[in-house]
Amino acid sequence: MSRVGIAVLGMGRQGQIHSRNIAYRIPEAKLVCVSDITMKQAEQVRIEGVELYDDYRKVLARKDVEAVVIATSTDTHEQIIKDCAGARKDIFCEKPIATSLKAIDEVLKIVEKAGVRFMVGFNRRFDPTFRRVREHVEKGSVGSPFIVNITSRDPQPPHFEYLKVCGGIFFDTTVHDFDMARYLTGDEIEEVYAMGNVLVDRRIGELGDLDTTMVTMKFRGGAVGSINNCRKTGYSYDQRVEVFGSNGCAIGNNETPNRAELTNSDGTHCDVPLYFNIERYPEAFFGEMKAFVQSIVNGTAVPVTGIDGRKAVVLSMAAKKSWKEHRPVRIDEIK
Amino acid sequence: MSRVGIAVLGMGRQGQIHSRNIAYRIPEAKLVCVSDITMKQAEQVRIEGVELYDDYRKVLARKDVEAVVIATSTDTHEQIIKDCAGARKDIFCEKPIATSLKAIDEVLKIVEKAGVRFMVGFNRRFDPTFRRVREHVEKGSVGSPFIVNITSRDPQPPHFEYLKVCGGIFFDTTVHDFDMARYLTGDEIEEVYAMGNVLVDRRIGELGDLDTTMVTMKFRGGAVGSINNCRKTGYSYDQRVEVFGSNGCAIGNNETPNRAELTNSDGTHCDVPLYFNIERYPEAFFGEMKAFVQSIVNGTAVPVTGIDGRKAVVLSMAAKKSWKEHRPVRIDEIK
Amino acid sequence: MSRVGIAVLGMGRQGQIHSRNIAYRIPEAKLVCVSDITMKQAEQVRIEGVELYDDYRKVLARKDVEAVVIATSTDTHEQIIKDCAGARKDIFCEKPIATSLKAIDEVLKIVEKAGVRFMVGFNRRFDPTFRRVREHVEKGSVGSPFIVNITSRDPQPPHFEYLKVCGGIFFDTTVHDFDMARYLTGDEIEEVYAMGNVLVDRRIGELGDLDTTMVTMKFRGGAVGSINNCRKTGYSYDQRVEVFGSNGCAIGNNETPNRAELTNSDGTHCDVPLYFNIERYPEAFFGEMKAFVQSIVNGTAVPVTGIDGRKAVVLSMAAKKSWKEHRPVRIDEIK
Amino acid sequence: MSRVGIAVLGMGRQGQIHSRNIAYRIPEAKLVCVSDITMKQAEQVRIEGVELYDDYRKVLARKDVEAVVIATSTDTHEQIIKDCAGARKDIFCEKPIATSLKAIDEVLKIVEKAGVRFMVGFNRRFDPTFRRVREHVEKGSVGSPFIVNITSRDPQPPHFEYLKVCGGIFFDTTVHDFDMARYLTGDEIEEVYAMGNVLVDRRIGELGDLDTTMVTMKFRGGAVGSINNCRKTGYSYDQRVEVFGSNGCAIGNNETPNRAELTNSDGTHCDVPLYFNIERYPEAFFGEMKAFVQSIVNGTAVPVTGIDGRKAVVLSMAAKKSWKEHRPVRIDEIK
Repeated sequence: MSRVGIAVLGMGRQGQIHSRNIAYRIPEAKLVCVSDITMKQAEQVRIEGVELYDDYRKVLARKDVEAVVIATSTDTHEQIIKDCAGARKDIFCEKPIATSLKAIDEVLKIVEKAGVRFMVGFNRRFDPTFRRVREHVEKGSVGSPFIVNITSRDPQPPHFEYLKVCGGIFFDTTVHDFDMARYLTGDEIEEVYAMGNVLVDRRIGELGDLDTTMVTMKFRGGAVGSINNCRKTGYSYDQRVEVFGSNGCAIGNNETPNRAELTNSDGTHCDVPLYFNIERYPEAFFGEMKAFVQSIVNGTAVPVTGIDGRKAVVLSMAAKKSWKEHRPVRIDEIK
Repeated sequence: MSRVGIAVLGMGRQGQIHSRNIAYRIPEAKLVCVSDITMKQAEQVRIEGVELYDDYRKVLARKDVEAVVIATSTDTHEQIIKDCAGARKDIFCEKPIATSLKAIDEVLKIVEKAGVRFMVGFNRRFDPTFRRVREHVEKGSVGSPFIVNITSRDPQPPHFEYLKVCGGIFFDTTVHDFDMARYLTGDEIEEVYAMGNVLVDRRIGELGDLDTTMVTMKFRGGAVGSINNCRKTGYSYDQRVEVFGSNGCAIGNNETPNRAELTNSDGTHCDVPLYFNIERYPEAFFGEMKAFVQSIVNGTAVPVTGIDGRKAVVLSMAAKKSWKEHRPVRIDEIK
Repeated sequence: MSRVGIAVLGMGRQGQIHSRNIAYRIPEAKLVCVSDITMKQAEQVRIEGVELYDDYRKVLARKDVEAVVIATSTDTHEQIIKDCAGARKDIFCEKPIATSLKAIDEVLKIVEKAGVRFMVGFNRRFDPTFRRVREHVEKGSVGSPFIVNITSRDPQPPHFEYLKVCGGIFFDTTVHDFDMARYLTGDEIEEVYAMGNVLVDRRIGELGDLDTTMVTMKFRGGAVGSINNCRKTGYSYDQRVEVFGSNGCAIGNNETPNRAELTNSDGTHCDVPLYFNIERYPEAFFGEMKAFVQSIVNGTAVPVTGIDGRKAVVLSMAAKKSWKEHRPVRIDEIK
Repeated sequence: MSRVGIAVLGMGRQGQIHSRNIAYRIPEAKLVCVSDITMKQAEQVRIEGVELYDDYRKVLARKDVEAVVIATSTDTHEQIIKDCAGARKDIFCEKPIATSLKAIDEVLKIVEKAGVRFMVGFNRRFDPTFRRVREHVEKGSVGSPFIVNITSRDPQPPHFEYLKVCGGIFFDTTVHDFDMARYLTGDEIEEVYAMGNVLVDRRIGELGDLDTTMVTMKFRGGAVGSINNCRKTGYSYDQRVEVFGSNGCAIGNNETPNRAELTNSDGTHCDVPLYFNIERYPEAFFGEMKAFVQSIVNGTAVPVTGIDGRKAVVLSMAAKKSWKEHRPVRIDEIK
């Protein structure tokens, strides 16, 4: 069996996770090399036999690299994707594809023209719990979806420096939930109404952003839905989904670190859910990478496309517009 | 101990439940008599020693009746409340107080002037699960409320004849959830946005009504919230609440008929939640009546006031307006 | 409809519960009168229209009393049953029937000869959770039973005075679990091995009794089982059962006062299970009485017979013998 | 940082799991080489840079191998341990150490004399759920242990050929649960009583073995306990533990592949627990290996000793004797 040669660009936490999954858990793939703009960071990969670069263009020059995983900072995505497409490498790119709709559209055109695979990293689609909910919907166990509710709350806000550049809560957080809503229902969102408040940290408001939000959605197929987000629970990652329909209701609950419980005179107690995405979604990070490799090996389409990536951004734009203009916004208003 | 003499007007299912609770489970009260417009229905009470009437005015003439429970049809509430106030009886009235805001305000003024107690039957406030959630909020275990989510779905739609006269889903169903949102948070709702669809039964749409709705709320204290309703689950009553805040998250789950589970090769299975309000809320019906009696015995204020009843109606009006005008509506727009 | 006239003897807590269920919740029955050896205690019934006696023989003389509920102290059961049988009344008797096997056998013979109904109060058979487990077994969802585990622990030990006269933990506590094991499996126990210790209160050991026990059972059909008991949890009543078999595993869990949960940085917390039998088994007390009345109304056999009562006592005797002799004891060793 | 050089002997499923954990998940360790009696099987390791041998003695000759993991067939353990001790390698050995008490004692003496570390692979001690239960006990949240219940049932019986040589259910299955009982309580077992039956497969009985068992235990500290085993659930691995004590009750429940649930008119459904030890205990396999490496790195004692391995075997012997002689057996009867 010849294995798919893969390079990972960007050795931040996400890049390291992808590197380890490729090297250790996906036999059909081979981690050829990694790059980072600083060599010291590239060394973080700590996997034997993997070559290190401080310039991704040298990576793209290698013939034994068939596919590239882009886990660099968001502002570099656009250029790197173009270069990868130019080098005829299949691409796995962390979200978002780019920061403007114009740039996204340009990138998608180039990628399509180059005829390379292009997959976007909406990892949660590969979480075992959410996949099972999707399966229940897909098999018809839920019937026609009527109501979709998504809860998605972080344990703690990110660093303030990050908050300044992340594009705001709708682009940083809700974007994942919009993709989840599309994934779970297999349907498209036609209209959103967004509201929110600054309850966690006053400084987030000073950035013109929100930290607690409620978005409602109207789906093409008739369903209604809600997404609630908060930058801080204080306990852990609170990630739950629900699809209620004509035949039943499928719920995806939080994952905990163990199944122990203690009953004493104060009640019955279980441990808090897993802390954050690194703890909660290891199987999802593995699953998306495995799916990417399998689409290459089997010559099939990737399961999360550039169009999926674009749609989630458009929905985030509509949500922001809805909040700013204090009214429901149709998705086709976003051009 | 002298017991509070109570009469129940209207011997429909709700009136019978109240009668039995008063007669059998509240030692501080005595069920003196009941009435119904048809004697045959009044006979349904089937409690020994209780006198029957087919005219509630005869009931009001009795000196040994100190308090009256109004469980008659909605269109009669206004007149009966006025007559009770005139007869200086304390009043427990099923919701809604009346069908127009004008009528409600008139009734509340008369009741206040008469100086009688006036309690509205929002029974769910007395459900042990929701009370416990409220306790967690009240004690500060949740901290400042940030997000409130309420799920409230019926097992089956009511009879079509009832659907025609019930005032629509916002007045018939969501009204309870608005009261729940106010109760759980101890806060007031300032703005709502309502949307929905006709997914259960086309005929509901032909009545100009919805059967599946999503309402978002903005609270005075800054919290955001959602209420989702559906006229049909197909399984049973789906009644869950959640208050998430700065210190934690309190959830009230569905109640099931037993705690048995079966694991076989298909998975682990539990029975469906309790079927409908009669099955789910017996303790709530008892609790509200006990609270009414205790406020009389102790000379204290009733826990659910006419103002509470009015506010829930105003919120339902705002929701309907929001849906019709396709925009968020501030509560103070409703006069 | 003519209702079954019933008298309740003994107005302790149990007698009061039965009285209220008969008077208020079982329309086919009529509570005619109650008795207690002290008139003051008889007055505790507090149900209108019910006559009071301080001598149960006067009760038995009433023609309108068709059936009698015996909730007096254990040492009086034998004589009262005989008198009831002599008066041709159907009998519901709290366990145990009598304190010696000889007395039980004599009583059972008299009752049979008199041709009156005789039901023993193993209320737990009527608990909705345990009934559901039994249903799973009966329908074959569990297949052939292989393993039965029963957990039965009290929140607090009874008063020391009671401990002195209750016959020991096997007769006071395990006896219920032996009946449960027979009920759940529909099978008979052939051999037991009992062990235990004094861990809760040294004084229990000084009485020659145990407070923490583990009993294993061998069933005729081949299954094995265990019963663990403790006189004190410190939290609440811990009452769980499990039947594992060739097709699956049915579990009956504890019942809690509500379905609320709180998640904060310490974990997810629920309230303790219901405190004791009064809190946990109200539906079981109602269910057994309803079943007794229905067997009279329908002319059918009672669901818990004198033989069931006898068998549970024999099993308790075998358990005690096993503990004393430090060896497994076959049930047919008990004569 | 210099890493601990480790070799894994035996490339069956267990050896492969250990190899991958050492190579990929334990940065303080380096997988130097592996061996198997057939080279083809050794090749199954599929980890780059790892040398392969078909003779473990060549492995022991390597200076860069500091520690050895023995995952070969049971009958080879004794000789390999002796050779490892002779070569002054630290040893991690899968249970059982050897098949006779005499051999175990000899091995333990040799290992002790050689002054090498010796850890036995009771992996379940490292399962996150059972660790958490142990933590609750250790911290005193449970108080003094009163009752310990362990459920341990396999999804399917092993191959018949394996059943013939495994030593019987007490040595193959219960042995793990005896170790678990000691681990959870931190206490020693003084006496056991074992019973059981052949309910799964008649042929198991023909081997003179049981497939369904119930063992009770008496602990030195006064607690009582039970272990129930079955060779077949038909659904999946059923692995639960409970420690009840003077202050509370800690329970370890089954682990499921996801946290999704579906409610429809038939009830609420979750997926079956994880299938078998490979699926249920990956973190435990990792945890035990990590603990072994850390004890080497930190120069501390291993957490599961040869004495622990010996004690579990002695308890299994006592259980078998108890069953055969149909009586409780004190552990000190086993010499």
